[in-house]
Amino acid sequence: MKKAFVYIQSGGPTAVINSSLYGAIKEAKKHPDLIEGIYGSLNGIEGLLDDRLIDLEKEEEEDIELLKQTPGAILGTTRYKLPKDLHDPKYTKIIETLNRHNIGYIFVNGGNDSMDTCHKLHMLFEELHLDIKVIGIPKTVDNDLAITDHSLGYGSAAKYVINTVKEICIDASCYKKGKVFVIEIMGRNAGWLTASVDLLPSDARPDLIFLPENVFDLEKFLVDIKEIYLRQGHAIAAISEGIVFERDTSSARVDAFNHIQLGGAADALTKIIEKRLDLPTRSIELSLAQRAYDILLSKVDLEEAIACGEFGVKKALEGHSGEMVIIKRISEKPYRSEFALVDTINVANEERMIPSSMMKGVKMMDQSFRDYLYPLIQGEVPVKFEDGIIKAARFKKVLL
Amino acid sequence: MKKAFVYIQSGGPTAVINSSLYGAIKEAKKHPDLIEGIYGSLNGIEGLLDDRLIDLEKEEEEDIELLKQTPGAILGTTRYKLPKDLHDPKYTKIIETLNRHNIGYIFVNGGNDSMDTCHKLHMLFEELHLDIKVIGIPKTVDNDLAITDHSLGYGSAAKYVINTVKEICIDASCYKKGKVFVIEIMGRNAGWLTASVDLLPSDARPDLIFLPENVFDLEKFLVDIKEIYLRQGHAIAAISEGIVFERDTSSARVDAFNHIQLGGAADALTKIIEKRLDLPTRSIELSLAQRAYDILLSKVDLEEAIACGEFGVKKALEGHSGEMVIIKRISEKPYRSEFALVDTINVANEERMIPSSMMKGVKMMDQSFRDYLYPLIQGEVPVKFEDGIIKAARFKKVLL
Repeated sequence: MKKAFVYIQSGGPTAVINSSLYGAIKEAKKHPDLIEGIYGSLNGIEGLLDDRLIDLEKEEEEDIELLKQTPGAILGTTRYKLPKDLHDPKYTKIIETLNRHNIGYIFVNGGNDSMDTCHKLHMLFEELHLDIKVIGIPKTVDNDLAITDHSLGYGSAAKYVINTVKEICIDASCYKKGKVFVIEIMGRNAGWLTASVDLLPSDARPDLIFLPENVFDLEKFLVDIKEIYLRQGHAIAAISEGIVFERDTSSARVDAFNHIQLGGAADALTKIIEKRLDLPTRSIELSLAQRAYDILLSKVDLEEAIACGEFGVKKALEGHSGEMVIIKRISEKPYRSEFALVDTINVANEERMIPSSMMKGVKMMDQSFRDYLYPLIQGEVPVKFEDGIIKAARFKKVLL
Repeated sequence: MKKAFVYIQSGGPTAVINSSLYGAIKEAKKHPDLIEGIYGSLNGIEGLLDDRLIDLEKEEEEDIELLKQTPGAILGTTRYKLPKDLHDPKYTKIIETLNRHNIGYIFVNGGNDSMDTCHKLHMLFEELHLDIKVIGIPKTVDNDLAITDHSLGYGSAAKYVINTVKEICIDASCYKKGKVFVIEIMGRNAGWLTASVDLLPSDARPDLIFLPENVFDLEKFLVDIKEIYLRQGHAIAAISEGIVFERDTSSARVDAFNHIQLGGAADALTKIIEKRLDLPTRSIELSLAQRAYDILLSKVDLEEAIACGEFGVKKALEGHSGEMVIIKRISEKPYRSEFALVDTINVANEERMIPSSMMKGVKMMDQSFRDYLYPLIQGEVPVKFEDGIIKAARFKKVLL
């Protein structure tokens, strides 16, 4: 029996989150014998709760193509967390929506929190003996998903961070008496994205790199910064948003998954530097741009994101469910990867940190980290501009 | 008699400041009959004070070519202000350096403060009857230089701001319940760069735009932000770093020209929004990247920057001095420009603001502003990457 397909985007966007959707739509269209509708759920799982599904086949072909260079989550996203109790009335609402539209395949494109959503849905369908397949598509610029070699979106975010920090470092070092720059990079509790700046050459890189995997020694930091500043007239530190030191977090916000909203570490550190060292400072938060920059994509990341969407659809049609697609690195030089599946329970709510073998003090990473990251930022992608401005997909979002 | 040529970079860098140097070097090399040495002064005017000049002909051809995609000021820059009194011993030191190296031509590539330097040098040479020509090359992302149609570097910075803000806006609007985003853009006391986001389409642009040319009404701002947030689940304001409102500036730093160091307006505003409206916020400062992003250049800006360097050298060789190159727009559609010269006294220390005829409330600019900016961001420039990282020029800096 033909069934419909629904795609969910969840958690923070990446520069290639819409490219996985592109791959999934392309693959789904190849199977009119099995798939009777290609839908998108608005604002993640919330679209299933509120019955807000759109017909993706009503979107223009040009916009589907532009998904490959569109930031944000075009279907809208959410950080909504499903209840633990599978008998909660919320699940009844979800089942109603799924039945109403004859959904047989669900794709959840997200990070570790989203794989929790994926896992709960799978458990629910098992319990109710419903023939609905759920497949997870991994994405997060934080690269903190367990088991997979890397996450989709990480390569492009790292490429953005590396190149942008290079431009900033060159600009920042052109005064004889400059400043102390503290550059804050995303990654929650994992340092993968911050560590990426280690790929930069010695004359255009931060002097110091701080990851949340290590204990942050504020006193040592101040001593190092002062020494570097006095020697070269400026100092540049790259810090992860997740490093921990004493600061005022009384007004911190938490999201639905109880994660503290990050950001502000660089600002707090520069204030300490000004007070303790009396040096001029500037804090630079790379902020949302680092996960949204379709202007500077990694070709490897983009191609894997598309292929991963295709692979997920194929596997769902083959009958897989409750599994997330993972990327396996099968060769380093030349880089080659392939996809496989793992149970979402093994990924849900897990965080993968940088192993200590890849780290090496506050000035640089181990060569093994460079070998790991290097292939993931390769290849430039020519994107389409119109009158000097990057084009992006616009969806009509026709509700079912 | 053959004389040497010295190039000075001054003030804040732009993405194309090194491209004007490229143009000047290329042009100077065409005149071996008139020019006997092509030198660069390290850290602006400070290089003349300390006799730290480098021989630009000793740099590799590949690095000269890469100047066209190198951020920062490759010769180093300064905000050093020359004394008012032309009989100050500092000037004696400068004259010594100039005589020692038989300098006959000085190029000062900078903004309004740098044209003050240019003017003082010209006055000094007139007074001392020295045959040394001084030509100013205009640059500033702030676009606040008087008389010239626009400043070199503005087009590329505007292109970066427009495109980056577009990516951020798309990312920022994909949650049903999002945040209030305040994006801070450079420009000192002029709103040219902030206003550039007005070129964005209605579905991917800030809801509100605040320029320093207008009085910032905090109460009205809070009312507007709340209304927009409640209506669409997020709100995005683009503000110039130079807008004025009551905040703690007791610890503000000033530079050598007595300008207050800007930055921090978005952060201060989001704190007010949180306190007064109790809405989740995020401040985003585009910071140094907006003036340093050679990854996303405006082709028009790049070509004008190169041509302006060439033009300056030609005019110096013709005997002009104490003048700055300006850009005249001779046709709007299609856009065409030509160069001319004006006395630096007319530009030095002047600030040009956006005329009121180009403004139109807090939601948009007048069409005349769009017509003005539009040609300046046109054309993409393919830059060279190596293993996923943008290449940049490296100078050996061989001292004379």
